[in-house]
Amino acid sequence: MNFSVTILGSNSAIPSLSRNPSAQWLNAAERIFLIDCAEGTQLQLRRFHLHFQRIKHILISHLHGDHYYGLMGLLTTFHLLGRKEILHLYGPPELSDIVNLQLEVSLTRLLYPLEFHPLVSAEPEMIFTDERVEVTAFPLLHSIPTYGFLFREKIRLRNYPACRSYAYCSDTAYDESIIPLIKGVDLVYHEATFHTELQEQARNRLHSTAAEAATIALKCGAGKLLIGHFSARYDSIQPLLDEARAVFPETIAASDGETIQIFSKH
Amino acid sequence: MNFSVTILGSNSAIPSLSRNPSAQWLNAAERIFLIDCAEGTQLQLRRFHLHFQRIKHILISHLHGDHYYGLMGLLTTFHLLGRKEILHLYGPPELSDIVNLQLEVSLTRLLYPLEFHPLVSAEPEMIFTDERVEVTAFPLLHSIPTYGFLFREKIRLRNYPACRSYAYCSDTAYDESIIPLIKGVDLVYHEATFHTELQEQARNRLHSTAAEAATIALKCGAGKLLIGHFSARYDSIQPLLDEARAVFPETIAASDGETIQIFSKH
Repeated sequence: MNFSVTILGSNSAIPSLSRNPSAQWLNAAERIFLIDCAEGTQLQLRRFHLHFQRIKHILISHLHGDHYYGLMGLLTTFHLLGRKEILHLYGPPELSDIVNLQLEVSLTRLLYPLEFHPLVSAEPEMIFTDERVEVTAFPLLHSIPTYGFLFREKIRLRNYPACRSYAYCSDTAYDESIIPLIKGVDLVYHEATFHTELQEQARNRLHSTAAEAATIALKCGAGKLLIGHFSARYDSIQPLLDEARAVFPETIAASDGETIQIFSKH
Repeated sequence: MNFSVTILGSNSAIPSLSRNPSAQWLNAAERIFLIDCAEGTQLQLRRFHLHFQRIKHILISHLHGDHYYGLMGLLTTFHLLGRKEILHLYGPPELSDIVNLQLEVSLTRLLYPLEFHPLVSAEPEMIFTDERVEVTAFPLLHSIPTYGFLFREKIRLRNYPACRSYAYCSDTAYDESIIPLIKGVDLVYHEATFHTELQEQARNRLHSTAAEAATIALKCGAGKLLIGHFSARYDSIQPLLDEARAVFPETIAASDGETIQIFSKH
């Protein structure tokens, strides 16, 4: 059964023609989660031939625009294409106001039920569970309220030695307090906005360097590390990848359109 | 002196990989106006190598998402790139609430002054004038409050026999009441969402067919007609172009990235 993540955007705030801002398509045992939804995400879904009516859950980590400015467009397209099935939306409480205001002014009444689940807890909180998958939201250390997400498979399959797991950590400063929660995760996505040369800038803006992302992966004993949310200043992200691999060799750099299969490390 | 329009999006509500939704870059005697700003507009500006800090005025015709969902991303990118110069934003009054709410939740204080000009008049209203150009907003007939825009050059140049003009009419049902206002315009952009085969659908949704767009151009004595806002159902828009040309031969179909020079018809 599929457990993989497809990168829809790997840049930070400013989009470029080769790297869109944050969005990921997670297939967790055939449950489809969209994690963040930057401007242009619906076009990325088309570009990479992902059947987007399969999305049942959209998780917005925080309300910086590069993580949600594509949400309204996607919600509207679902509507225009005649979606009937319920959609679950998770995010900071103000997201509901933002969505409702824009639906109201356009006199749009969505054809499908949109159920909003506010993220408010200061502690890790299970936000979804069914017979196969469990999702936990947990606070990250950023300039506005921000959540990471941990996805865990619940049933061990015949050909797999253990349940698979994926953690999404963006945006965040270096913060060891998340380590116990994501201990032993098979794949951790951790933002790596800057090279260590810009350590100061990373600290001031509550972002991480590639070395910091790798240190978190190392300390939590992750199977693999996926870095992304790269500053638009980097034409090539090879220096960031090199920096991370020096600390944690099993590092992959996110690249728009790429799918990473998640395997159990055990 | 340049007087031209560059198409940034020619589709209606649903974006496709070849046609983005509505946005136009108007160079009116070296004043740059962005007319509408669908999701993805900032990437279109990059794609077509338009220097987007030259934009001084953004005009939003109405609050259907396919005309403004790219606005927040563009405003944020201006900010992140260090813009200092004032930006004038024109649109229905609720647009100000939508922008401010999203800036507030992200704790963003723009580095540049953003001056909002609400469009509320039920009559044509001059919304901008300087020594070279005059802009008038006028109500269109649509399902929510919607404005068209008329741009007129004020100074006749040495090599030109008359002042040039451009009218933007989207979204709108067929409405002869705009004819006196845009009489004799050099280039009129008029939405042509549907082929006449879908006349009923056009009427119900307060959109126009290609033939109706052409009839407006004919009756107002325009120099040329530019059609756009095509329904995503049309892979080829040749049938819509043929339909319009049967009524008004001087018709052009909008195509993303194309620049149309505006000449005086006199």
